[in-house]
Amino acid sequence: MQATARAHTNIALIKYWGKRDETRILPMNNSLSLTLDGFYTTTTVAFHEELTEDQFYLDDQLVEGAAYGKVTAFLDRIRQTAGRLDLSATVHSTNHVPTAAGFASSASGFAALAAASAKAIGLDVTDPELSMLTRHGSGSACRSIYGGFVEWEKGTQADGSDSYAVPIAPADHWDVRVAAVVLSSAEKKILSREGMKRTVDTSVYYPAWVESIPADLAAIKQGICDKDITKVGETAEANCLRMHATTLAAQPPFSYWHSTTMAVMEAVQDLRDSGVPAYFTIDAGPNVKVLYLPEQEETIREKLQAIPGVQDVTVSRPGPGLAYL
Amino acid sequence: MQATARAHTNIALIKYWGKRDETRILPMNNSLSLTLDGFYTTTTVAFHEELTEDQFYLDDQLVEGAAYGKVTAFLDRIRQTAGRLDLSATVHSTNHVPTAAGFASSASGFAALAAASAKAIGLDVTDPELSMLTRHGSGSACRSIYGGFVEWEKGTQADGSDSYAVPIAPADHWDVRVAAVVLSSAEKKILSREGMKRTVDTSVYYPAWVESIPADLAAIKQGICDKDITKVGETAEANCLRMHATTLAAQPPFSYWHSTTMAVMEAVQDLRDSGVPAYFTIDAGPNVKVLYLPEQEETIREKLQAIPGVQDVTVSRPGPGLAYL
Repeated sequence: MQATARAHTNIALIKYWGKRDETRILPMNNSLSLTLDGFYTTTTVAFHEELTEDQFYLDDQLVEGAAYGKVTAFLDRIRQTAGRLDLSATVHSTNHVPTAAGFASSASGFAALAAASAKAIGLDVTDPELSMLTRHGSGSACRSIYGGFVEWEKGTQADGSDSYAVPIAPADHWDVRVAAVVLSSAEKKILSREGMKRTVDTSVYYPAWVESIPADLAAIKQGICDKDITKVGETAEANCLRMHATTLAAQPPFSYWHSTTMAVMEAVQDLRDSGVPAYFTIDAGPNVKVLYLPEQEETIREKLQAIPGVQDVTVSRPGPGLAYL
Repeated sequence: MQATARAHTNIALIKYWGKRDETRILPMNNSLSLTLDGFYTTTTVAFHEELTEDQFYLDDQLVEGAAYGKVTAFLDRIRQTAGRLDLSATVHSTNHVPTAAGFASSASGFAALAAASAKAIGLDVTDPELSMLTRHGSGSACRSIYGGFVEWEKGTQADGSDSYAVPIAPADHWDVRVAAVVLSSAEKKILSREGMKRTVDTSVYYPAWVESIPADLAAIKQGICDKDITKVGETAEANCLRMHATTLAAQPPFSYWHSTTMAVMEAVQDLRDSGVPAYFTIDAGPNVKVLYLPEQEETIREKLQAIPGVQDVTVSRPGPGLAYL
C-alpha cells in the first residue's frame, strides 16, 4: 500500500480569485494556468494498519502544527473515499526547486499528495476525480494534475462534482518561458486566503471581476491555440491588474504589491516599449512572474536582475503533468 | 475694465473622476476638496476695445500654443456671457509656489482667471455662477472659489446649471496639514484627461466607482464636522485607491503610479503602524499628498524626505477662497 507521485507547480494566467464555497473549495470563476518545470514535489505515501496516526516528513524533516493538520485532513478525505478509516499513513515529500524561486509549494504539494495517496490506498480514480480530490487540499493545486495549459472549470453544482481541471494544450504545444522574479523583502502582510475572502466579502469591484472572466478566457484560449504571445500576454497582464484592483476597493483596502513589485512592472513595460514582447503576472504576494519567448531569454534576465530589490530570477518552461514513479 | 483676483489650489479628498459631458465639463460624481495655502495664482485681466486679440502672460512670459488657446477660449465664454464680443484682454498671471510643490496650477489658475475677467468685464455674478464659469476652464478649479473644505455638486441638469461648488467648512474650522511629496522622475505617461476618458469608456469597474461615492461623501463630511483625522483620512485614502483601481481595469489598463509612489504609500502605512495618524491621496499622476495633524509635522517631514526618489516635501495648511486685490 505504497505509491510515489511527482507533480509540478503552475502559474495562473487567468486568476483563481474568490470562493463561492469555502468548505468545498469551489471558485467563483474559471481560471487558467501554465504548469511549469521549475518547481515540483515528489511524494511517497505508505498506508499501514498498525500506525495510530499519520506522519508527515517534508524534505526529511518531521512536520507538526498547521501544515501537518492540512495533510492529515486531506488524508481523511482519501480514507473516507476508500472506506479505509482504519489506516494511517507515512508521507515523505520533497520539494525540488533550483533556488528560492518564489513559487507556492501548495499546488505541486497537494497534487503529488493526492495522486500518491489515492494510488497507495487503491482508489481507482479518473483524472477529473483526482483533480476534485486535489482541489480540497488547495484550490489551485487541482490544475497541476495536467501539464501545459490547464483550465479549472468552476462548475455549477452545489456539491462541487463538476468543478475540476481540464487540459487545454500540452507542455510541448508552445515553448514560452516564465521568469520568476523574487524580491529581497517579500514577506506577505496579508495571507492570500484572508485577502481573497475580504475581497469577495467587501470589494465593490468584485462582481465586475467575476463578470469579466469569460471574455478573458475566450481571448487567452485563442491566443494559446495561435501561439500568439501578444494576445496571451496582454490578456494575462490585464487579468492580473484587474484582480489586484479588486483588493484596492476592499474594506479596508489593501495591496499585495511592494514598491519593487511596481519597479518590475515598469521594467516589463520598458521592455515592451523597446520592442521585446514581455508580460507580467502577479499572484497574491509581491513577487512577479514574467512571460516571454525563448529568443528573449538573455535580454529578459539582464533587465530583471538589474532591478534594485530583486533577489533572484529563475526561469521555467512549460512542465509536465502528474507522474507516478 | 481691469480687475485682479487671487485663488488657491485645492486637493481632492473625494476624487473628481469621469465626465458625463465632455463639452460642458459635467462630472459623473460629486467630489470634495480642501483648498490649500501652499500654492496660489494671482491674475490681472484688462479688457480693451482697441486690442484685436488676447494676450496672456504667465510669470511675465508671453504664452502661445495650447495654454494660450485654453485661456482665450475661456475669455470667449466671459465675453459671450457679458455680450461684449468686441473686447480683447491682456492677462497677467503669476503662480506663487514655495518650491516645486507638485500641485496642479490649473485649479488656482482658472479660478483666478474667472474671477478677474468676470469682474473686469462688469459681470455681476453670484458665487455659484462664478463656480460654473470656472468649471468650463478646468473642472476641479470650480472648487477653488471657496476656502477650506468644498464640495462640487455634480448636478442633474443636462445644461450644467446645477453643477457647482458649495462650501462645507471654512479654512479656520480645522488645522490639518497636507504634505505634497514630489518625486524625482515624475513625468506623466498618460495625461489626466485622457486617462479619465479611457477609464470612463472602458473600465469594467467604473460604474461601481460612481455608485460608491455617496457613502464616501457622507463619511467624510461627518469626519470633517467632527475633526476626526481617522475618519477623514481613511475615507480619503480608500477613495483614492478605489479611483486608481479603475485605471487598472481600463482597456488597455494603465496606472499613474511609479515605484516611488508605492514607496511613499508604504511609508505612510509604516507611520500609521507606529501610531502616527497619516493618510495619503494621489491625483492623476505619480506624486503623493499626505494628510496629517500639526503636532506630527516633524515626524512626517523626516519620514517622507528620507524616501529614496523623493525630491521635495512641501507643507500646506487649509487655504482661503477667492480674493479680489
